[in-house]
Amino acid sequence: MADVPGECVIGVDLGGTKAIAGAVDSRLGVHYRTRRDVPTADLPALLRTLTEIVEEVRSAIGGDVEAVGFGIPCLIDQDRGLAASSVHLPINGIAFADVMAERLGLPTFMDNDGNLALLAEHRFGAAQGERNAVMLTLGTGIAGGILVGGEIYRGSQGAAGEFGHMVVWADGPVCGGGCPNRGCLEALVSGTALVREALAVAQRKPQSKLGLALASGREITGPLVTELGHDGDPDALAVLAGIGEWLGIGLTNIVNIFNPDVVVIGGGVIAAGELFLAPARRVLSERALALPAEHVEVLAAHFGAESGMLGAAVFAREQLGRRVRA
Amino acid sequence: MADVPGECVIGVDLGGTKAIAGAVDSRLGVHYRTRRDVPTADLPALLRTLTEIVEEVRSAIGGDVEAVGFGIPCLIDQDRGLAASSVHLPINGIAFADVMAERLGLPTFMDNDGNLALLAEHRFGAAQGERNAVMLTLGTGIAGGILVGGEIYRGSQGAAGEFGHMVVWADGPVCGGGCPNRGCLEALVSGTALVREALAVAQRKPQSKLGLALASGREITGPLVTELGHDGDPDALAVLAGIGEWLGIGLTNIVNIFNPDVVVIGGGVIAAGELFLAPARRVLSERALALPAEHVEVLAAHFGAESGMLGAAVFAREQLGRRVRA
Repeated sequence: MADVPGECVIGVDLGGTKAIAGAVDSRLGVHYRTRRDVPTADLPALLRTLTEIVEEVRSAIGGDVEAVGFGIPCLIDQDRGLAASSVHLPINGIAFADVMAERLGLPTFMDNDGNLALLAEHRFGAAQGERNAVMLTLGTGIAGGILVGGEIYRGSQGAAGEFGHMVVWADGPVCGGGCPNRGCLEALVSGTALVREALAVAQRKPQSKLGLALASGREITGPLVTELGHDGDPDALAVLAGIGEWLGIGLTNIVNIFNPDVVVIGGGVIAAGELFLAPARRVLSERALALPAEHVEVLAAHFGAESGMLGAAVFAREQLGRRVRA
Repeated sequence: MADVPGECVIGVDLGGTKAIAGAVDSRLGVHYRTRRDVPTADLPALLRTLTEIVEEVRSAIGGDVEAVGFGIPCLIDQDRGLAASSVHLPINGIAFADVMAERLGLPTFMDNDGNLALLAEHRFGAAQGERNAVMLTLGTGIAGGILVGGEIYRGSQGAAGEFGHMVVWADGPVCGGGCPNRGCLEALVSGTALVREALAVAQRKPQSKLGLALASGREITGPLVTELGHDGDPDALAVLAGIGEWLGIGLTNIVNIFNPDVVVIGGGVIAAGELFLAPARRVLSERALALPAEHVEVLAAHFGAESGMLGAAVFAREQLGRRVRA
C-alpha cells in the first residue's frame, strides 16, 4: 500500500506478449505491480486488457493517480501522436495515448518502450550521470534506446534505436513479424531466440534436463532455461552462452558506432545475468576496436526487467509537469 | 590562381593510401588541388610527404595561408590532441596536429576524416539544413560521420562513427589491418573490396574485359572497374552491384538505428554513382523498417570525392575563428 498514493503515476511497459504495470511514487517507489499476458492479434481485446490492468493498479493502491505512461513496442510518430509501426502488435496508425486517455479518464502519455527503459536507467539507474549510452531491452523482441549528450535521441520521426533490426548475419534466419529482414539481432538474441534454441536442444537431446522437461510436459521458457543455467546445467549454459556471443557482436557494432560510456542490458532475459553477459563481453573485447571497447561498460539494468515500467512512470510524471507548466 | 589567396586555408584529406589537398577560400572555392600516394608503413616518410604536399599547395597559390586542416583516418583523442588509433596508418599516439604545426609553421587542426567529410556536406552539400544525417566515405577503408540535431556526434572519446567496423556478416571475411573483426562493412564495401572482387572476376574469366585488362598488364583499380561499368560491361556492373547490395545492408542498419533524414555516400568509390547506389537503395527498401526507410534519402556526396578535403578546410577555418575569438 502506498505511503503517498496521491503522488503516484502508473507506468505500463507493453512488450510483444506481456504487460508489466506498477504504481510508482515520485521517489521511484513501486506501491503495486502486476504482470499479464496480452492478446496480440486483436486490437479491441488488447485495449480492453490494458484498461483492466491500469484499473487493477489504480484500485489496488486505493488512491488518486495523476497520470499514466505507456512504453509501447512501436515506432512512435510524436508529431501526430500515433503509434506508427509495430512489428509485434496490431496498433499501427492508432492514436494510442489519446485512445487510452479516453478509456481511463486520466492524462496519458506514450513513448517507445526502449526509450523509456533507458530514461529510467539514465535518471536513476545504471546509466545515471552518463552522457552517451545505449540500452537494449531483451524480451519477446529487442527494444533499444540511445542517449546522446544526456538526452534521448529519437531520430527524425521518433523511429530511432531499432537495434533489434540491425543485421549482424546477412544470410541469417528470417526476423519475422512485421520485419522483412533476416539475420537481425532480434532473431538471434531476444527471449524468443533463447526459447527457440533451448527447444532445439530439448528435441535433439531427449536425456538432457531440457529434454526431460519437455517430455514431462513443461513449457520451455526463458525463465526455465535461466533457472537450469543458474543450477549449472551444461546444456542451458551453452544456450545462454550462444545468445551471449551473438549479443557480443551486436555490442561490437554499438561500441564502434557510438563510442558510448555505457551499454545497459535489460528486459526479461537479463535474469540470466552473467551467464550471457560474460560471453557477450568476451566477444566484444575480441571484435571491437580497442579504444572504445576499453572505455565502455556493459552493465545489467539496475532495475532488471522493470526499467521499462519505471521509465513509463518517469515519462508520465515529466510530461505532466510540462503540460502543467505550459 | 586565387582571387583571394590571403583568405585561403589548406585542407588535407588523408586516406588509407592517398592524400588529397587543396587551397580553399571562404566561399569553398578551390584554388589549387593535388593528390598523391602516401607511404603507409613509415611515420617519418609519411610526415615528410604530408609536409611536401602542403608546401606544394602553399607555393602554388603564391599567397598567404591562414591555417591547415587535416582529416585523418584515425580515432581522435581531442582532449589530449592525439591520433589515438588508426587501422591504416602508423600514427597511433602521435600529437599529429602539433607535429604538423611545428613542421609547417601554421595553425594546424585535425579531426577524423569521416567527421570532416560530413561537415562539408552538412554546411554546404547534400546534407545542408538537415538535422539528423549519417555519411559514409568509401575509399581504401570506410570513414563515417554522424550528425545529431545539426551537430557532429563524436562519442565519448572522439571514436564514434566507425561504420566500417560494423559487422553485417558474422562469419564473413577478416577485416584486417588494425581491426580484429570479421564481416565488417569495410571488408565488403570499400574501394579495397571493390578491387578484390574485380580481381577475382578477372582471374576467373580471362576473356572478360577485366580479364583482358589484367592479362595486358593493367592494374585492376576502382576507377577501371567504374569506367568499364559506365561503358556497360556486364562483369564490371555485376561487381559494382554486389558492392552496392552489401552497402544496402549497411544502410539498413543505419536507417533502423538512426532514423536519419539523409545518408550521404562519398569517397572515391562514389565515382560509380548509381551503378552501386541503385542496388543499395533496392536492398534498403527490401530490408529496412518501412517508416524510416520511406523517410530517408540516400544521396551521393555533393562534393564527390572532395568532401573530406573541403571539410578539413572548413574545420580549420572554424577552429581558427574560435581560437582568434578566445
